[in-house]
Parts: sequence; structure tokens; C-alpha cells
Amino acid sequence: MANIEILPTLRWEGPAVGGTLVLLDQTRLPGETVDLRCDTVDAAWDAIKRLVVRGAPAIGVAAAYATLLSLRELNDAPDADASNKTTTREIAATVTAACDHLATSRPTAVNLFWALDRMRATVAHWEQQREDDSPAGGQLGAELGELLLSEARAIHAEDRDMCAAIGRHGADALAELPAGAGILTHCNAGALATAGDGTALSVIFELARRDRQPHVWVDETRPLLQGARLTAWELTQRGVDCTLICDNMAAAVMQAGRVQAVVTGADRIAANGDAANKIGTYGVATLAAAHGIPFYIAAPTSTFDMALASGAAIPIEEREREEVTCGFGRETAPAGVRVFNPAFDVTPARLIRGIITERGVITPVTAGAVAATLAAGSLS
Amino acid sequence: MANIEILPTLRWEGPAVGGTLVLLDQTRLPGETVDLRCDTVDAAWDAIKRLVVRGAPAIGVAAAYATLLSLRELNDAPDADASNKTTTREIAATVTAACDHLATSRPTAVNLFWALDRMRATVAHWEQQREDDSPAGGQLGAELGELLLSEARAIHAEDRDMCAAIGRHGADALAELPAGAGILTHCNAGALATAGDGTALSVIFELARRDRQPHVWVDETRPLLQGARLTAWELTQRGVDCTLICDNMAAAVMQAGRVQAVVTGADRIAANGDAANKIGTYGVATLAAAHGIPFYIAAPTSTFDMALASGAAIPIEEREREEVTCGFGRETAPAGVRVFNPAFDVTPARLIRGIITERGVITPVTAGAVAATLAAGSLS
Repeated sequence: MANIEILPTLRWEGPAVGGTLVLLDQTRLPGETVDLRCDTVDAAWDAIKRLVVRGAPAIGVAAAYATLLSLRELNDAPDADASNKTTTREIAATVTAACDHLATSRPTAVNLFWALDRMRATVAHWEQQREDDSPAGGQLGAELGELLLSEARAIHAEDRDMCAAIGRHGADALAELPAGAGILTHCNAGALATAGDGTALSVIFELARRDRQPHVWVDETRPLLQGARLTAWELTQRGVDCTLICDNMAAAVMQAGRVQAVVTGADRIAANGDAANKIGTYGVATLAAAHGIPFYIAAPTSTFDMALASGAAIPIEEREREEVTCGFGRETAPAGVRVFNPAFDVTPARLIRGIITERGVITPVTAGAVAATLAAGSLS
Repeated sequence: MANIEILPTLRWEGPAVGGTLVLLDQTRLPGETVDLRCDTVDAAWDAIKRLVVRGAPAIGVAAAYATLLSLRELNDAPDADASNKTTTREIAATVTAACDHLATSRPTAVNLFWALDRMRATVAHWEQQREDDSPAGGQLGAELGELLLSEARAIHAEDRDMCAAIGRHGADALAELPAGAGILTHCNAGALATAGDGTALSVIFELARRDRQPHVWVDETRPLLQGARLTAWELTQRGVDCTLICDNMAAAVMQAGRVQAVVTGADRIAANGDAANKIGTYGVATLAAAHGIPFYIAAPTSTFDMALASGAAIPIEEREREEVTCGFGRETAPAGVRVFNPAFDVTPARLIRGIITERGVITPVTAGAVAATLAAGSLS
């Protein structure tokens, strides 16, 4: 595998207060490789909403950095003098409001809420430490800014480590596969979906590093073609053998005996192991079961929402009809036809052979096994 | 259901020799409703190849008419005087060669070969009847032309009757479904795929006529979106309730209990009931089985290829990579990525609850039941 460094999915540029969140604009891939710079919380919110950055882990990291933009906005405000009079409580409230707002950008990926909760806790901790509530505006902002940037960078670094650990555990789990085995994936759970090598694709990159020569079957993943645009791009860039197919071809490829395992990411996993992921994942899991092919989810423990007993409680985002009827700049359906466009579906735990986390592989997937792994706590 | 007359999928205009095959250009739907006029065999071959006309029954009817264009070309040839010297054998050879050529336009739909076999038989019968092989060019062409046009019109009319009978048998088979039941279909097996109301859609139109108010879930059917462009268009035009989904959403819709039956067409059916149909059909059938939903094929008996013992022998057309990577006028995959683009897949008989033919419903689907229905012979 060629070890080409691909452009970072996201990064923070500049100081804690006054810096910029820079995102590789994934809506323009693979045709154009351009960055989008976000200087305001609203711009970051919009970028997450529009899928400029997507993938549950990457959304979490992006949102963590985006909270810093609220301090920049406070600093850049026309009444900057007034901001110098801002108190600890007012600054904390500003950042917390930004966290609340960013949490509304997308409803399904739990990493978003998890990362924002860590940023909120950082704010709350700082606020508690400061007993003095006298106005000191810019100075207070700078102090909190350093703490927030440090926390966002920690989330970012943990994400990279998490990806590497998932890659190792997943490659161990798939060690029995013959060299050149077919592995099918859906949507994009790669470097573009995380701050590291990805989740599902990290497993594939690790297999490639171990010279297992995986052949990846890439579902194009309608309506937004993250498989065709992003996964096929990542794999091609890094020299991993792959074949692009339409989503509806996966069954025929399985029937032909060309798929030995399926690995996808997840956006939210309930306490019993039911996993929400990109629409179509449930279908792939059902087809894998019908063909006796093991189906794996690769996701960090931050993807688990232990407050939800089962997948039935996971909210599923429905998106615009135009993604389906006019996704390629040309209307491809009759005007006015009704469209159902859920962005995710839920795969029940019974269809999942194992959940590959940074702490090891949860298998069989049961509420007890999930609880045990979540309680363990340390990064392997 | 509004009983709107939609434009004919195909028609023959003008005399037997000198007339034109007029096709509704399905590649331009739903944006534009325009005809394509074919004056030569090559133009018709190209139209079939490019899916201007598609759907197994419609291809058969179009190819039958297209054989007449070989006589027109003979007549229009610059050396028309020479053609007056043409003999019975030469004219028969010309039309037979056109049949051979048209048969190469697409490999999977057996109706194409079946219809061309009938045209070949018409030619052979005429040739046998004529003992005199002295040159009589134009006169001979006109004589054969009338016979060929009559045979093509017979195939055309039989196709309309076949559609109506399939609609009745299918609606009878689905009579137990509650009013408003969800019926999922894949690709287009409607009026646009036949000379009548379609096969799968004929069942739905008949249910609508019987006031069963079916709700149709329309798979968009990548890569060429026949579901979105054609099926959704037909249903909308005729006032049948429907919802368009991406192919990968079918599983989630089934999981939600919103699909009570699946009905699709077929392009070729082996003697044991294994059925080739648009890529994705096998996946839908597998998903239906996993959800306990009955899966039906609706197809005329001309779709059966009794020379093939099982579906494994059905040749599967592979089409251009650009249909997947650049289907909408914009490149949506990285340059050079490998693509697998089979146009069809094979659904094994065990997944098919019944095959709805113009002679009744074959159920359970076994080689014996298929043979019995094929032997029966009369149109019910």
C-alpha cells in the first residue's frame, strides 16, 4: 500500500481566539480538493449540516473546534470595548450557547453530542474555578480559549489514536480471511470521516499494511454517493484495490461468492448493540446474513449512547427530497413525486458479528458485552 | 385512478415498406417527452442498445417492427433498379440478416430472440411458399412486407392482451392484501416496458382499478434510474399513489412494516423458475424473504427460456462504467476507479412466491409447474 499522506479532513489554524476551523470540503470531492474556512459558529454549523464535514467522529472533532469560534465572534464584535467588560458568567454562557446551537446541526451522530458535552464540561469547570465574576472580557476569553483549544486538540488526538486501535483490533478479528479476500463497505468511514485513518477503512488500511491485500467492494451509497466520491477516492489515493458498485449490486456480488466480510461504520449505537449508520447499512447487513457473510461495525466507544436501551429510540434524520430527485444537477424524477429520504437506518444487534472499538471487539453483540466494554474505560 | 392515456411506448407509422418505427425516447424522460424515429435497422439496433426503448416485452415488439426497416433500406438503396432484380432468396436473406443483427443489440431479454424467431419463421414460410425464384424486387418486398407487418402487429396486439391478463391474474393473487397495502417494485415493468399496461405495473394498475388503493414504493434503480424516471412518471401520470426511494432504502421501508408485497418484471426465466431481472432484483427478493414479504415476478410466458435448466446459464449483460461514474452529466467517482456494472441479476426460484403470467400464476415455482403452464398454451 502506498503510504500517501492525504489532505487532513479538518484542522485548526491560528490562535485559540481568532483562529479558524479549516475543513476539506467533502461536497466537492472527488472533482475538486478545496478547503472551506469557517470563522463563525454559524459557518461551522452550516458546514456540518451541508456535509462539508461528515462522519460521526469527524463531526465531533469539528464541532469541538467550532465552539472556539464563539470567542472569536465575541472578540470581533463591533462593541469590542463592551466585550472587555464581559464577565466570566457571560463568556461561559456564550460558549455554552454555541455548544447548544452546534448540537442542532445534525440529529443522529452521537459523537457530536459527546464532543460538545466535553466542551461544555470544560467551560463549566473553568467557570467554577473562577470565583471572581468581575468584568475582564478579552483576558477571560483568552484564558478559556486556551482550555477549549486544549480540549478540542485532545479529542482530535484521541480520535487519531482511536482509529489506529480500531484498525489493529479489526485486522486481528479478520486475520482468518484469505489474502485477497473481498470486503464490502458502505458509505465512508475512512480518514474523511475521522481525524485519523477512519473506522471501517482503518481496518482495511491495517489489513493492507499487513499485506493481506484486501479487495474492497465500495457501495456508491445513494443519494449523496459518499462511497463513490469519498471511499473510492481514499482507497484509490492510497493504492488499495477496490471496485465501485451501485448499492443494488451488493447482493449479486455476495451471491457470486466475492465478499468474505462486510465492515461499516456507525453513527450511534444503543446499549444493546443496535447500530444506526448510513441508510442502506441495514440492507447490507440483512444480505450478509442471508449469504453467511460476517458483518462488522467499526466505531469508537464514543458512538455508544447508553441512554438508549435499543435502536428503536435512535432519532433518524430525514433529509431534503432534492438529494434523491436532483442529486447530480439534473432533475431525474417527475415533478411533485413523493420522496422518502431517511439518512440512516438501524441494524439490529443480532445481525452484527462484532463491533470493533478502540478497546477491542465486542462479540457476540449483547447488552452485557457492550456494558462490560464501555465500563472498562482504558484505550488499548 | 385517473384513466389518462399516456403516449404509446412504440408504434409503426406508414406502409409496410417505407414506414418508420417510432419510439418514445425513454432516455429523455421524465424531463422531455419526445419521439425518436428509426428509418434503418441500424438506427433501431442503436435505440435498443441505448435503452431508448427497454423492457423485455417492448424490446421484442420493437425488434419485430424493426425487421421491416431492412425492406425499406433495400427499397431506398441507390441501386433501387438493381433491387428490382432481387430474388425471393435474396430478400429473405436480407430480412433474416436483419433479424440476426437485431438479436445482438442486447443479450439478456429472451423476448427479443423470441420475437425475432417469429419474424424469421414468417420469412422462412414465405420463402418456402414461393417456388419461383426469378427476380421481382419491389413486388416481392411488398408481399413479404405485408406478412411481416401483420406478424409484428400480432406480436404487438398479443403483448397488449398479455399485459391485461397479467394484471387480472396478479390482482387476483394479491386480493388478500388490505386496501392501501404497500407494494414495492424495482426498475420499470410498466407501459413503457411493454405495448400495454406493463407486467408488474399492470398488476398495480388493475389493483387501482379494483379500488384497492395500492401504495407503490418505487426503487429508483441505479444506475439508469428507470424507477425514478419511468415508473414514478407512469404512476404519477395515472394518479397511483407512490413514494420514490433510493434502492438502499428498501430494507428500511420493509423493516418499518410498510411493504406487503413485492412485484417486479423479468427479462429471462429459466425452466426451473430462476428469473433474471434488472440488477438489484435479487437483493430485493432476498430482503423480502428476510421480512416474510411475498415476492412476485410478473412476466409473459415468452420470457421463459426452456432451453436453460437454471438461472446459472442466463448470460448477464455488463454495461459501461460511465453509467455508474458519470450517469448524470457529472463525474461522481475518482478517475480510473474499477467499476462492476452488471445490468441484471438472477433471483432463484426458491425466493419467488409466484410468477404471474398471462396464463395464470405459477406457484409454487418449480420446474414441473413451469412446464405445465408453458405446455397449456392458451391465453386465459
